[in-house]
Amino acid sequence: MSVTAPAGFRAAGVVAGLKPSGSPDVALVVNDGPQWVGAAVFTTNRVVGWPVVWSRLVVKDNVVHAVVLNSGSANVCTGPGGYEDVHRTADHVAGFLDVSPGDVVVCSTGIIGDRAPRERLIPGVTAAAAALSPDGGDDAARAIMTTDTVPKTVHVVRDGWSVGGMAKGAGMLAPALATMLCVLTTDAVVDPADVDVALRAATRATFDRIDSDGCMSTSDTVTLLASGASGVAVDRATLTEALTQACAALARGLIADAEGATHDIAVTVVNADSEDAAVAVARAVTRSNLVKAAVFGNDPNWGRVLAQVGTVPEEVAAFDPELIDVAINGVQVCRAGGAHEPRERVDMAAQREVHIEIDLHAGDATATVWTNDLTHGYVHENSAYTT
Amino acid sequence: MSVTAPAGFRAAGVVAGLKPSGSPDVALVVNDGPQWVGAAVFTTNRVVGWPVVWSRLVVKDNVVHAVVLNSGSANVCTGPGGYEDVHRTADHVAGFLDVSPGDVVVCSTGIIGDRAPRERLIPGVTAAAAALSPDGGDDAARAIMTTDTVPKTVHVVRDGWSVGGMAKGAGMLAPALATMLCVLTTDAVVDPADVDVALRAATRATFDRIDSDGCMSTSDTVTLLASGASGVAVDRATLTEALTQACAALARGLIADAEGATHDIAVTVVNADSEDAAVAVARAVTRSNLVKAAVFGNDPNWGRVLAQVGTVPEEVAAFDPELIDVAINGVQVCRAGGAHEPRERVDMAAQREVHIEIDLHAGDATATVWTNDLTHGYVHENSAYTT
Repeated sequence: MSVTAPAGFRAAGVVAGLKPSGSPDVALVVNDGPQWVGAAVFTTNRVVGWPVVWSRLVVKDNVVHAVVLNSGSANVCTGPGGYEDVHRTADHVAGFLDVSPGDVVVCSTGIIGDRAPRERLIPGVTAAAAALSPDGGDDAARAIMTTDTVPKTVHVVRDGWSVGGMAKGAGMLAPALATMLCVLTTDAVVDPADVDVALRAATRATFDRIDSDGCMSTSDTVTLLASGASGVAVDRATLTEALTQACAALARGLIADAEGATHDIAVTVVNADSEDAAVAVARAVTRSNLVKAAVFGNDPNWGRVLAQVGTVPEEVAAFDPELIDVAINGVQVCRAGGAHEPRERVDMAAQREVHIEIDLHAGDATATVWTNDLTHGYVHENSAYTT
Repeated sequence: MSVTAPAGFRAAGVVAGLKPSGSPDVALVVNDGPQWVGAAVFTTNRVVGWPVVWSRLVVKDNVVHAVVLNSGSANVCTGPGGYEDVHRTADHVAGFLDVSPGDVVVCSTGIIGDRAPRERLIPGVTAAAAALSPDGGDDAARAIMTTDTVPKTVHVVRDGWSVGGMAKGAGMLAPALATMLCVLTTDAVVDPADVDVALRAATRATFDRIDSDGCMSTSDTVTLLASGASGVAVDRATLTEALTQACAALARGLIADAEGATHDIAVTVVNADSEDAAVAVARAVTRSNLVKAAVFGNDPNWGRVLAQVGTVPEEVAAFDPELIDVAINGVQVCRAGGAHEPRERVDMAAQREVHIEIDLHAGDATATVWTNDLTHGYVHENSAYTT
């Protein structure tokens, strides 16, 4: 499973000592070819980690040989020394593989403002290089975890080729991209001109539509490596479809493991005047602390849903508030902007997933955005993270 | 104090039985003249209560004789019957005062989707009319409370005239306007052409800059009544200044009483390229659940502040992330985008107020937005509100 499921990849996950817990904290994923095609999508935050600054340049030529990742420090707001850390790390990996450092993507996750101790990071990379294995995908997935409680991996199998992947992220999950690191691998033979477009299309419909707590990270990176080792050539549409399936599974896994959450909430907007409008309305609802707290209390509070829909400006989404229907877990609690079926019929306690469907009666576009409930666990975890 | 502190006003607050708790729930404020000038500012939500629909029309001619307010039901999403309730209520008040129903502002606050029982509401209005008194301001302030723990009132005294006010609101506090009802009164002699402009200027710099939980209400209404009873004529600038002071005090009171909060957080952005940019950056920070949870944990997590600043698009606020300074309670924990003074120096536990100052080094504009921390109390109160 994970990133080593497709042919042509080795990976490792080791303990470098960056995390006080002593858990694995350095991961390495290497493409053994015969193709070395790559692409990546990054956070749109204006404050970014040095690894993002570095890796944006690495992927420009769509050639990537390896991805090295560490948890324990995000290497954000760390001054010029932080950039040197990135450069040294990439250099060190490149030395082992006999490739250019400019073909090594670097990803870091953890606390902002603290540098990882280089005397531990670099030996950690050495250990990871020594541990590289075609079975190392699961170890790598474990080494990128921060507040995650389980590793997230995926394997999407097609006819003679496949897509593998791993992701981390359990909070600060918000567009663009959740707070997450993700590495996708494929052994398909792909056109280098296709990978960037395919990866953007896949993340746009998946990672960009999860919004755990409305907070956008400084480090989000989704990297795709293609080895060509299957010998099966794949066109852009086919690649996009498989990547989208892989990303959707990983994104769903992130929401399912979100910090302190007791419910995963799918907010689906139907009959919007455009897909962008549907996304905007769904996102407004997923951003409401009042809606999220109500779901935690198993309270089908459709009034809070409508109040949130009403905050979306007219130029973004056309709708008449008096036509809106809201169904929660299939019970139409609101019809034409007013109370309809009794709220007592809604059972939210029975399962973790909650489905809120909003019918705008304004067109035929649909979109779903996932979020979590707002719980005591979330407050607890995020009030005690760095202290 | 409160709305009856200026000359020319009577008020009352009574128990109509709309609240299960048996607390006062109908308030009435009457302008006895000799001027009957009025204005109001409303929520910008597209989903609004019937009282907002009604009252927007009432204030169009800047003539207002009375404001009637109820808690217990917001009269939002209640169907055509809800509008009839508003009309009947205004009619009933107008009958007692021998004025036009079209000069009576109606405000409602409480749960969305439920109508107030008319057989209690109308007798409640009768009782309020019978109880009207020049000392009734405090009773009225108590009757508009929902989850508020204390009534919020203000009296700003000037030379021979004054501004009085009352407000309610303890959650769903977000722009435009917090979830709040507010009535302001003045005995100044004012030009009817000035009141709308003065009131908008005052609320824009005060109620529009508190953002307790990012949720915008469907019912927010700030109404100003001017009686002219002092005989002192006041120009627009003078009126605006006094109204702003009154609104600032009430807005600060709302934040201080926000649901479940343990900290009031002032996010001040200095040296922005425009006031709008300063407000946008400050608002982005006040909307971050991660920043708010960190403050609850007395954790001076400047990294989360910077990450949130970075989400503001370049076209909204110009700044270079590598120049930003952040001070928390006067300790400069971040300088030029990196760690500076040790975070241990920041004492957040000692007092309820927390001051976060962000220096963008991009201009000379400043703005402050207030919010609260994200606490277990907030989650508890908002997961159990309607059930």
